Amino acid sequence: MIEFEAMSSSKIEILPNPAPERDYEIAVSAPEFTSVCPMTGLPDFGEIRISYVPDAHCLELKALKYYLLEYRSRGIFYEAATNQILDDLVAACRPRRMTVVGAFTSRGGISTTVTATYTKRKSGARR
Amino acid sequence: MIEFEAMSSSKIEILPNPAPERDYEIAVSAPEFTSVCPMTGLPDFGEIRISYVPDAHCLELKALKYYLLEYRSRGIFYEAATNQILDDLVAACRPRRMTVVGAFTSRGGISTTVTATYTKRKSGARR
Amino acid sequence: MIEFEAMSSSKIEILPNPAPERDYEIAVSAPEFTSVCPMTGLPDFGEIRISYVPDAHCLELKALKYYLLEYRSRGIFYEAATNQILDDLVAACRPRRMTVVGAFTSRGGISTTVTATYTKRKSGARR
Amino acid sequence: MIEFEAMSSSKIEILPNPAPERDYEIAVSAPEFTSVCPMTGLPDFGEIRISYVPDAHCLELKALKYYLLEYRSRGIFYEAATNQILDDLVAACRPRRMTVVGAFTSRGGISTTVTATYTKRKSGARR
Amino acid sequence: MIEFEAMSSSKIEILPNPAPERDYEIAVSAPEFTSVCPMTGLPDFGEIRISYVPDAHCLELKALKYYLLEYRSRGIFYEAATNQILDDLVAACRPRRMTVVGAFTSRGGISTTVTATYTKRKSGARR
Amino acid sequence: MIEFEAMSSSKIEILPNPAPERDYEIAVSAPEFTSVCPMTGLPDFGEIRISYVPDAHCLELKALKYYLLEYRSRGIFYEAATNQILDDLVAACRPRRMTVVGAFTSRGGISTTVTATYTKRKSGARR
Amino acid sequence: MIEFEAMSSSKIEILPNPAPERDYEIAVSAPEFTSVCPMTGLPDFGEIRISYVPDAHCLELKALKYYLLEYRSRGIFYEAATNQILDDLVAACRPRRMTVVGAFTSRGGISTTVTATYTKRKSGARR
Amino acid sequence: MIEFEAMSSSKIEILPNPAPERDYEIAVSAPEFTSVCPMTGLPDFGEIRISYVPDAHCLELKALKYYLLEYRSRGIFYEAATNQILDDLVAACRPRRMTVVGAFTSRGGISTTVTATYTKRKSGARR
Amino acid sequence: MIEFEAMSSSKIEILPNPAPERDYEIAVSAPEFTSVCPMTGLPDFGEIRISYVPDAHCLELKALKYYLLEYRSRGIFYEAATNQILDDLVAACRPRRMTVVGAFTSRGGISTTVTATYTKRKSGARR
Amino acid sequence: MIEFEAMSSSKIEILPNPAPERDYEIAVSAPEFTSVCPMTGLPDFGEIRISYVPDAHCLELKALKYYLLEYRSRGIFYEAATNQILDDLVAACRPRRMTVVGAFTSRGGISTTVTATYTKRKSGARR
Repeated sequence: MIEFEAMSSSKIEILPNPAPERDYEIAVSAPEFTSVCPMTGLPDFGEIRISYVPDAHCLELKALKYYLLEYRSRGIFYEAATNQILDDLVAACRPRRMTVVGAFTSRGGISTTVTATYTKRKSGARR
Repeated sequence: MIEFEAMSSSKIEILPNPAPERDYEIAVSAPEFTSVCPMTGLPDFGEIRISYVPDAHCLELKALKYYLLEYRSRGIFYEAATNQILDDLVAACRPRRMTVVGAFTSRGGISTTVTATYTKRKSGARR
Repeated sequence: MIEFEAMSSSKIEILPNPAPERDYEIAVSAPEFTSVCPMTGLPDFGEIRISYVPDAHCLELKALKYYLLEYRSRGIFYEAATNQILDDLVAACRPRRMTVVGAFTSRGGISTTVTATYTKRKSGARR
Repeated sequence: MIEFEAMSSSKIEILPNPAPERDYEIAVSAPEFTSVCPMTGLPDFGEIRISYVPDAHCLELKALKYYLLEYRSRGIFYEAATNQILDDLVAACRPRRMTVVGAFTSRGGISTTVTATYTKRKSGARR
Repeated sequence: MIEFEAMSSSKIEILPNPAPERDYEIAVSAPEFTSVCPMTGLPDFGEIRISYVPDAHCLELKALKYYLLEYRSRGIFYEAATNQILDDLVAACRPRRMTVVGAFTSRGGISTTVTATYTKRKSGARR
Repeated sequence: MIEFEAMSSSKIEILPNPAPERDYEIAVSAPEFTSVCPMTGLPDFGEIRISYVPDAHCLELKALKYYLLEYRSRGIFYEAATNQILDDLVAACRPRRMTVVGAFTSRGGISTTVTATYTKRKSGARR
Repeated sequence: MIEFEAMSSSKIEILPNPAPERDYEIAVSAPEFTSVCPMTGLPDFGEIRISYVPDAHCLELKALKYYLLEYRSRGIFYEAATNQILDDLVAACRPRRMTVVGAFTSRGGISTTVTATYTKRKSGARR
Repeated sequence: MIEFEAMSSSKIEILPNPAPERDYEIAVSAPEFTSVCPMTGLPDFGEIRISYVPDAHCLELKALKYYLLEYRSRGIFYEAATNQILDDLVAACRPRRMTVVGAFTSRGGISTTVTATYTKRKSGARR
Repeated sequence: MIEFEAMSSSKIEILPNPAPERDYEIAVSAPEFTSVCPMTGLPDFGEIRISYVPDAHCLELKALKYYLLEYRSRGIFYEAATNQILDDLVAACRPRRMTVVGAFTSRGGISTTVTATYTKRKSGARR
Repeated sequence: MIEFEAMSSSKIEILPNPAPERDYEIAVSAPEFTSVCPMTGLPDFGEIRISYVPDAHCLELKALKYYLLEYRSRGIFYEAATNQILDDLVAACRPRRMTVVGAFTSRGGISTTVTATYTKRKSGARR
């Protein structure tokens, strides 16, 4: 019943940064994230927390919501989902730095949180 | 029904700092902030948290309350509101440093917090 | 009805530090602090938090309680009260360093916290 | 009734790291850990918290669950259990760094938390 | 009725450290500590929190419990009790470093927390 | 600046009750309610909590949101607002019973909660 | 993208009640419920809480989980979902009484909780 | 220093009840209440919680605040203060019923809450 | 590895009730209960809460602890475990009434609480 | 070391009830209660909560504190301590009704709360 589609980040939209002369932080919390476990086909639930210092552009929040909704029917592991969201958002808005946290609810008595960070200056996607 | 006026920071008032010889911090929390979303015309709600090290002057709290009340009928995005409040308060009381946090309630399952900082010594409004 | 007296710190008493050979911290919390707003004559409420590294002497706690009780009928702003308490306590027990936090309850939807620090070595009352 | 077996870490399984080019953190919390006190034969209860930066491999979570289940009938002190788990997991997935926290519930009015860390670069198991 | 005995730390026992090759932390919390105020003869209550990096030996927890129980009928000030416990435990297990926190409940609307630290390398009992 | 309009409840919309054969409860919480104090012209903030047993009709939630938004620029006391909302909602959806709670935030150190109930059988608006 | 299927309760399974001679309560909480809003096509999230007094049969919990998972792609209002779950579970296990609570997260600043109850003796589905 | 005046309830003011046809409850919480212990002369702190069903009149909140402020320099026991407030408020607004709770903070490790109720119908001040 | 033994309640011990002339309640909470799921062989975790009005005898708490420990290696469903504990304890101490609550942690996103009650007067094990 | 004395309630003192014409409740909480386990000689800790409707007399709080302090060196079980306190306080102040709750901290993973009630009218010490 669950469909495993190819991933796309086409839906992310950006807006001009209203204060590009200043390093400031935007933190977004999406506590209603859900994806599908590729091993069991059962849903996973979690909270995606994004914080970033914008450069020329900010993320448009409504489009971000629709982007995260696409994971609802997607089979993906926690580690891959968190890194994929970071890669997609960095590609879309080119921030000065960005951290994505995926905090997933308990499965079998074990809960998992994945934290990945991107920083611009260090020439590429190193932490 | 909602009116989108030009912004003014005329209402902010200042008092002499009672201990200018010392670097100390004043933190102000205003949890009943509300503005208007410029896209939907619907109200936004949040908490504005201001912390600063005063130089010659402190912010007068009653005038600060009235200044924040002016956003009640103003259409403005989260990022712009937080940066605007920082700019207006820095212009009024010329602090040694100041941070403004705008923590806004959930819309469509997503909540947003914006944090902007001003520091005096670095010649201008860079973080 | 409220009396605005001149301030005095005569009541603070000190004890010998039982472990002067060691830098260690003593933190005292007084959540039942109350003073009077000099503009409205109405009472202010808050918590005074004192933390310090004693040198030769510690603060005697019962005398400290009576010292703080004197603010009950005193008209004083938040910023001045916090700095005054720091100055009085430093003068009395000459600590290696001390921080005083005044966390005051909400007035008109706005709450305020003032944090002031004294450090001995930097020749005088700079933070 | 309780059996004290020799320890084995044979069950831990690993998966390829989906983002080895980036230093990122995976944190796993297992709040239903239980072992046996070697002095009294009575059960101990606690939460095992593992956080690590993967190198070439990640820990497979279902196998990790079964590995932790083996302590259910094992007689071992808090300090030894926490260090043993760290050693076993480091041997299995060779992370860039890893911290294991064992937070055990109160016994006789006293609760204990043990925190051990491994870092790769410092040539061996020093913190 | 309360007896003020001379202090002794004879009861503290030690165990070999199971992982001496690694710097790791053991934190112990004893929330049911009680002693006697030497001025009023009334009981004081608090939580003693000990955290240390063991060297050759760990503290044995049952003996530690009995050591802390001895303060039940001992008249001692907060500052002295916290420093005494640190001195006794350091003398017994010779840790690489140790911090003792004594967090005492409110008396006359004022609560007190004392934090003392020992570090081995700095040749003696400096923080 | 604040406009005091005549009140209207024209905006409330209703839907058919999907289970009219059963007495069941629908509880709606609107924590972002704001109105205007008629004495000071300053905004009031609170949470409106509505619970009711529907008869033939349920309240449509989006229209309910717009109905509550109309109080944003309306000068009205707490007691009157809570009773007015109860009267308007009862008139619109004719429930078997309904309770409206208005829980308003602190003003001058005093917070107020108003609770009004309507029950159908007792011939009219008695509790 | 979202599919609106006809509803079926075929998946609910039952087990013999191990203590039918006694009236006792079984309460089940499923905090990861999600369905689809039939007006917007966007996901809704909530917690389903079921409590019942079993008669001859209990609900089998794994089958109950799969039954609730079917709502993941189903367009249904809060009131209808809660009543539908009650009807389906009552039909399957014929309890002495059962209450279903659907507590849904905030949408547009408004959150909703629906509570429906079935009792056997009162000849049919009255509360 | 503390003055023990004769008590007066002259300051309580009333407003017409906007919905006298309905029994509804108004609950007021004043968490910044302070009086003086008549035995020690030291301040007491507590929260006064008033809930009542108004008859012809409601309590005016600003006057209520000033009425409670009068206890700031008044020597009175907990039990007497709570009953006095109930008597004064009943005399002023003649409610259908009223409960006053005085919840006082800890003194000597003991905290006290006093709850007194007035009901109109039972001809006089019986609970 | 897990052994499924026949059940026995031989270990429960009783003490004379020190106040049999009075109906009073004893509530015991055991948050470290663990048993084994008979379908998966995996451990279940939960809290057993017992409250009862003793008649001639009270439960001895140390023996009660050992009785509950026997479930650690026993395969039993939640409903059966809760009813079995109630039956065993009632048989042992013959209380005037007793309630046993088994509150089990989440499995597959679903948590379960079972509540069973015994009352003496109603001639047998009816609620 | 611990002394097991005969019990006495000689220290409880009473005051005239300031409002004997009204049934009202006084609730006293003493969270720093400690006694001694008669089996192990180790200290027990708990909170004693007393609530009563006074008749002619109230309990004097300072004497009550000293009465509870006497249990510090007394060997007594939870059930006996709670009932003894109820009997002693009822004998001293002859209330219309009184409830004593003894809520004791965890021992061996099990915590216990005892609740005993006295009511005057039912001719003697029945609940």
